[in-house]
Amino acid sequence: MKRHAKLRSRKAGLPAGSLVHLGEVRMATPTMHLLEYDPEGLEERELGNKDQVLNLERRRQVLWLNVYGLHDAALMAAIGQRFKLHPLVLEDILNTDQRPKVDDYGDYLFIVARLYASAPEGGALTSDQVSIILGPDFVLTFQERPLGAFNALRERLRGNRNQVLRLGADYLAYSLLDTLVDRYFALVEEFSDRAEDVEEVILDKLRPGLIQDIHWIKRQVTALRRSIWPLREVLNTLQRSHGDFFRPETQLYLRDVYDHTVHLLESLEDLRDLLTGLLDIYLSTVSNRMNREIRALTVVATVFMPAGLIAGIFGMNFHHMPWLDEPHGFALSLALMGTIASVMLGIFLRRRFTS
Amino acid sequence: MKRHAKLRSRKAGLPAGSLVHLGEVRMATPTMHLLEYDPEGLEERELGNKDQVLNLERRRQVLWLNVYGLHDAALMAAIGQRFKLHPLVLEDILNTDQRPKVDDYGDYLFIVARLYASAPEGGALTSDQVSIILGPDFVLTFQERPLGAFNALRERLRGNRNQVLRLGADYLAYSLLDTLVDRYFALVEEFSDRAEDVEEVILDKLRPGLIQDIHWIKRQVTALRRSIWPLREVLNTLQRSHGDFFRPETQLYLRDVYDHTVHLLESLEDLRDLLTGLLDIYLSTVSNRMNREIRALTVVATVFMPAGLIAGIFGMNFHHMPWLDEPHGFALSLALMGTIASVMLGIFLRRRFTS
Amino acid sequence: MKRHAKLRSRKAGLPAGSLVHLGEVRMATPTMHLLEYDPEGLEERELGNKDQVLNLERRRQVLWLNVYGLHDAALMAAIGQRFKLHPLVLEDILNTDQRPKVDDYGDYLFIVARLYASAPEGGALTSDQVSIILGPDFVLTFQERPLGAFNALRERLRGNRNQVLRLGADYLAYSLLDTLVDRYFALVEEFSDRAEDVEEVILDKLRPGLIQDIHWIKRQVTALRRSIWPLREVLNTLQRSHGDFFRPETQLYLRDVYDHTVHLLESLEDLRDLLTGLLDIYLSTVSNRMNREIRALTVVATVFMPAGLIAGIFGMNFHHMPWLDEPHGFALSLALMGTIASVMLGIFLRRRFTS
Amino acid sequence: MKRHAKLRSRKAGLPAGSLVHLGEVRMATPTMHLLEYDPEGLEERELGNKDQVLNLERRRQVLWLNVYGLHDAALMAAIGQRFKLHPLVLEDILNTDQRPKVDDYGDYLFIVARLYASAPEGGALTSDQVSIILGPDFVLTFQERPLGAFNALRERLRGNRNQVLRLGADYLAYSLLDTLVDRYFALVEEFSDRAEDVEEVILDKLRPGLIQDIHWIKRQVTALRRSIWPLREVLNTLQRSHGDFFRPETQLYLRDVYDHTVHLLESLEDLRDLLTGLLDIYLSTVSNRMNREIRALTVVATVFMPAGLIAGIFGMNFHHMPWLDEPHGFALSLALMGTIASVMLGIFLRRRFTS
Amino acid sequence: MKRHAKLRSRKAGLPAGSLVHLGEVRMATPTMHLLEYDPEGLEERELGNKDQVLNLERRRQVLWLNVYGLHDAALMAAIGQRFKLHPLVLEDILNTDQRPKVDDYGDYLFIVARLYASAPEGGALTSDQVSIILGPDFVLTFQERPLGAFNALRERLRGNRNQVLRLGADYLAYSLLDTLVDRYFALVEEFSDRAEDVEEVILDKLRPGLIQDIHWIKRQVTALRRSIWPLREVLNTLQRSHGDFFRPETQLYLRDVYDHTVHLLESLEDLRDLLTGLLDIYLSTVSNRMNREIRALTVVATVFMPAGLIAGIFGMNFHHMPWLDEPHGFALSLALMGTIASVMLGIFLRRRFTS
Repeated sequence: MKRHAKLRSRKAGLPAGSLVHLGEVRMATPTMHLLEYDPEGLEERELGNKDQVLNLERRRQVLWLNVYGLHDAALMAAIGQRFKLHPLVLEDILNTDQRPKVDDYGDYLFIVARLYASAPEGGALTSDQVSIILGPDFVLTFQERPLGAFNALRERLRGNRNQVLRLGADYLAYSLLDTLVDRYFALVEEFSDRAEDVEEVILDKLRPGLIQDIHWIKRQVTALRRSIWPLREVLNTLQRSHGDFFRPETQLYLRDVYDHTVHLLESLEDLRDLLTGLLDIYLSTVSNRMNREIRALTVVATVFMPAGLIAGIFGMNFHHMPWLDEPHGFALSLALMGTIASVMLGIFLRRRFTS
Repeated sequence: MKRHAKLRSRKAGLPAGSLVHLGEVRMATPTMHLLEYDPEGLEERELGNKDQVLNLERRRQVLWLNVYGLHDAALMAAIGQRFKLHPLVLEDILNTDQRPKVDDYGDYLFIVARLYASAPEGGALTSDQVSIILGPDFVLTFQERPLGAFNALRERLRGNRNQVLRLGADYLAYSLLDTLVDRYFALVEEFSDRAEDVEEVILDKLRPGLIQDIHWIKRQVTALRRSIWPLREVLNTLQRSHGDFFRPETQLYLRDVYDHTVHLLESLEDLRDLLTGLLDIYLSTVSNRMNREIRALTVVATVFMPAGLIAGIFGMNFHHMPWLDEPHGFALSLALMGTIASVMLGIFLRRRFTS
Repeated sequence: MKRHAKLRSRKAGLPAGSLVHLGEVRMATPTMHLLEYDPEGLEERELGNKDQVLNLERRRQVLWLNVYGLHDAALMAAIGQRFKLHPLVLEDILNTDQRPKVDDYGDYLFIVARLYASAPEGGALTSDQVSIILGPDFVLTFQERPLGAFNALRERLRGNRNQVLRLGADYLAYSLLDTLVDRYFALVEEFSDRAEDVEEVILDKLRPGLIQDIHWIKRQVTALRRSIWPLREVLNTLQRSHGDFFRPETQLYLRDVYDHTVHLLESLEDLRDLLTGLLDIYLSTVSNRMNREIRALTVVATVFMPAGLIAGIFGMNFHHMPWLDEPHGFALSLALMGTIASVMLGIFLRRRFTS
Repeated sequence: MKRHAKLRSRKAGLPAGSLVHLGEVRMATPTMHLLEYDPEGLEERELGNKDQVLNLERRRQVLWLNVYGLHDAALMAAIGQRFKLHPLVLEDILNTDQRPKVDDYGDYLFIVARLYASAPEGGALTSDQVSIILGPDFVLTFQERPLGAFNALRERLRGNRNQVLRLGADYLAYSLLDTLVDRYFALVEEFSDRAEDVEEVILDKLRPGLIQDIHWIKRQVTALRRSIWPLREVLNTLQRSHGDFFRPETQLYLRDVYDHTVHLLESLEDLRDLLTGLLDIYLSTVSNRMNREIRALTVVATVFMPAGLIAGIFGMNFHHMPWLDEPHGFALSLALMGTIASVMLGIFLRRRFTS
Repeated sequence: MKRHAKLRSRKAGLPAGSLVHLGEVRMATPTMHLLEYDPEGLEERELGNKDQVLNLERRRQVLWLNVYGLHDAALMAAIGQRFKLHPLVLEDILNTDQRPKVDDYGDYLFIVARLYASAPEGGALTSDQVSIILGPDFVLTFQERPLGAFNALRERLRGNRNQVLRLGADYLAYSLLDTLVDRYFALVEEFSDRAEDVEEVILDKLRPGLIQDIHWIKRQVTALRRSIWPLREVLNTLQRSHGDFFRPETQLYLRDVYDHTVHLLESLEDLRDLLTGLLDIYLSTVSNRMNREIRALTVVATVFMPAGLIAGIFGMNFHHMPWLDEPHGFALSLALMGTIASVMLGIFLRRRFTS
């Protein structure tokens, strides 16, 4: 969150539509992968510079241009020019802290989603922005760096499994979204495992740092929720609207992805409830333990203070004191101590069990 | 939750519509029970393999095919082919972690509900997915294993009680949903009993583990709520839509089942409130008890520390000390101890009662 | 809640529309009171058995049949037959744990409300179901037992006060609902009194059981809220819909009753806020008290432990010790004790007042 | 709240429309102030009895009748008769515990608002009901007693400032509502001041009663919120509806008052957040303080208990003990005490600073 | 909040539309900056007095009049007269505690927004009201004092960057709103940094005042939220309505600003969650620490009290006591102390580790 606000404030004051990449430069040079297909077959090639983009000619029915690396403003402008993109679209692609959304620009849909790299090992969860543009017969995707998320999909296209080549650009866009949503399941699973680890420990015995662990998981869950929630809205919009971009048969599939996001949100909701419950258990366990410590202290004081007083009394230096000269005086004093300690302890315990 | 996310992530990367059973294989071979009826009578038989499914001919007006065991992909594909089901429907039947929903596929309704086996004895609550497909004159039901939930309904059909054979497939679908909802009442009753047991104990005296019990019931209640909530939505949709599948006279009955789900949700809401209240009582009881322990400790210290000091003073080895040689010195010192202890105790108690 | 779930689960497995009374049998024989009126006058009689119901002939314009006791299934069936009630209506009348609702069956409205016997003296709040059926020119009311709630209304009809006999069946139905809603005010008043009693005590001094009292009132308030909330919805529906059953001039009165339920819900909301605030005060008072106990303990220990050490030091048996032989040794040692105790106490108190 | 429920339950059982004043009689005789105006001028007079009301003749275009004191049922009935008011309107005027609302009776609007006397000095906040009836060319206002709220408005009419006499009855009604809403600002200011006083104290040092103060302000804020919330709804309704009573140019002014109520509600929301935050600070401060007390106790015990043990050991009466005869025995023993106490204290402090 | 309520209550009683400046006078004389442009060029000049306003003649297509300082009622009235503003608009401009809103007055839109001076260094966050009036070809802006927020925008107009001079008054209004929203990002960043500083400290070790810091950030976050929330509503209204003031191509840009406000609100929501979590950690850390102190105390008491008792016993002055004469008596007594202390400590620790 900190990073995002920072990025944004760095740009404050610039006019809207300025092509400035707000994000970290994660690649030396951008790479552009072009993939075209129709039912007859599939062609792939790499584009090297902005001239190739500007002079790009269509060879097959469906075109998918994937761009990794966003810091070359001239290149981005060229893509914008070639596919007639609105300046605000380019600006949103470059500001890589957008929340998921879908904007209808008439000639194309602009979809923003987020891709989580993988389950983190200790640091905070980070996500990359994936910008998807769906035109009538083309799909453009933009990311800051390659994370390999779409490799399996590319393989499916190459193998023409389930005859995907017969399906249009809208099915391709659906597949991209489906891939992104499936990624979330691994993350939710990861955090559920961690929360259940905490649960097992907390029901067994406390260890320092438990509260920090709960706090940490809670923050990640919140971050995930913030990311999936608008994505659900995006999918709901796409699934319901009878637009020009998704054909009815593809919308059935979108409904399926939509159901997945609902499912994810419920799992996160469950996780949150679980974590809140764990916090309650933690606090009550600490209270309970403190209670037990205090009881131990009280028992010790109750037993030894009266006995200590008696010992002190018979240690006084009065010349005239009872029992001192008697042969059984010492034993009697010890017996007195034992009696008083027992009585005190008895009072203490009885009071406890009757209340 | 953990299991679901795991199942789902296992499949991540596969194209939509792949027929892979995501769930545990709970039966060696699937069994298919076919039941057909019209006002004249009822016929039943078992189907053995996928050829019988593909060549299935209708004999009576209403058909009910019940399938236990979902891991035979070829068989499922055959059923899908025979009844013209969409690939996404088959996929959802096999992914047995769906949340309750209803999808209208034009030629049939696809309803997902969940069946809870029985009140658990200590472990977590588990549920099986029940997939129901309602066509104009047929009902298909799918489960991972037989749990006997529909036996009473089958008996009613066989006995033609209330002349149910005259009623169509929509009434059959309603009866299935009604049966599933009725199952929940036993669970809610079970958890209410447990919560009230905790309530009785907590108002009486604390025992360790109480907080874990509250936590456990809370989690089960949450799980039940997550299951009933979408089911309520399903029933609301069915009851309100003037669809082609449920006739108006059956919709009256659906409204009745819908009322039951509302009732269940309110009971669960009450349970949650009760559990939250119990947590409050628990924590305040722990606080109260700690308070009492500390007071006991303070009283003991207040009484015995001054007395102990006096004993110590008269135990000092000064050569010139008052009272030591007097015959009543010892008694005087004891009186002094008693006086000071009484005064201290008096101050302590008075302060307590006036504040 | 427990009871309801139990009742319902007892019936699970029966087909819908089975006439089984789910509730306690509270009367030996059902009684049926028939009251008919038109502007000219009013007639009353008791109906004895189901034949009288079946052969019932209308004598005046508006008919009000009130039934106490619901366990005679044959009688209920006869009433259902005479007034052409749907089986589901009869089922809902007999299942006396319905939440308030209104169902429009075309020929009549079916209204369910709940009647609270009276302010409870210690046990939990219990309520009886009141089922009201409003047809174009008749009103039927069903209860498990007579609680006298409608006696005042009957007297008003007999005395024809405000010329109520000129008004139709819809005004009669309104009057019944108004009576039921007025009953709630006494209950809310009762619980407000109790909560304010707790408030007075809690601001004064704590007593054991306070937390249980708060918990108990909270539960009753929740129960009341659950009962009034759907009733408000019922009245809102009746007041807004331009149905065939309530004429516009009667709907003005319904709006009035609706306002009362809104008022009741706000009072209960206030009560809940008050109870939550009392819980906060309770917990902070316990904390405060504990704080004070610990401070007393610390003061005692701070004063007497150093003094005790000095006494112990001069009680050691070394042959060569300072002061022992001096005439003012004893006084000096006491002065030392007093000085150290004062210094310690001073440090302790200063630290407290500066922080 | 208590009072309201009591008032209402006193009336339970009476038929709707009975003219019984539910409230305290706060004036010996009702007073009726009549004010009529048109652009040419303004006339004022007092009405003495119900006959004057019944025979009241209009002299100018706009009429404003203000009534203080509501317990004279005959007089109220006369007003109702003269201005053709519905019995329910009269009933609502007399039941002075109505929540703010607006009812459209076709010929006139019936508006209920509440007037807060002034900022309370310690007791709970009380409010009077102000009933406003707006007809096409008249305004009626009813209160239990004169509180002087409308005096400034009357002066403005008399002085014809901003030429208000040219404006119609709807502008007069708007001015009344504006006056009532402006009254709330002083109350919110008062409670904000009090809350900030508490805040200053709590961040400085605790004093007993703080928690009660927070509780008290919270209750007043809740009461204010309950009063303003429905008033906001009333103004929203008036401002949006294109009714016959408020002309479009007056509705602009109503939108302004509506904005004020929204502003008030947000201020109260802020106050609530502040009070909740103060409660958190209070509780954590108490915890912190307790922590410090316990630490002091522990330090004292850690230092003096070992030293005391050593003194006790050398006070034992064994015949053969080391050091006793040595000239530096005493000094050695003291050094031993000092060393052990320092070590213990060191361990204690180091543990604290490293954790 | 306090200040606002005070300002408002100062005005209570005045008729609506009175031109009284409710705010602090922050400038000696108001300054009026006039900026006119069309695609051909741009002219700027300062207006000195109200006559210049009244006789203002348009020279170019788009006019932007910016006013700093609002306390000159005659001047404000002149502006109102020249641009035909409604009295309520002028009143709202002068009451500088308005919440953000947009009012459509037919001939122009009246937009209220708030400008935050800069990130505060310790004091509370303060904001100035910015009133924007958008007519078909003019924009008026009003502020109490110059804060330099619009300087960059002015520079852009002067340089005609992105050819902004070709765009109409609506684009100018959009740019103003965009500038105001961008200001918020710096504030959110500032508070996020502070919260993360607190987080780092709290996970490391506690320091006094932490709770006050959390409280302070929480209050600022709440204040920001209250300011951005209605602004979001304003932008949503402007973006959705197909009004006469914003052309469709400008509405695309408004959607962009709207997205920014949504983003800001989510960041603030995250901040709130984080602060709540920090509070939980703080409280549990205090509890934990207290627990540890008490354990230390208990250990010390458990070890030294029994040993002290034994020392006291052998310090008694009985004539007949065992061991006293034995040569190893002293060593035996010490061994006894050590043994008992070890046993007690062992019991204490074992109990702790097994529970």
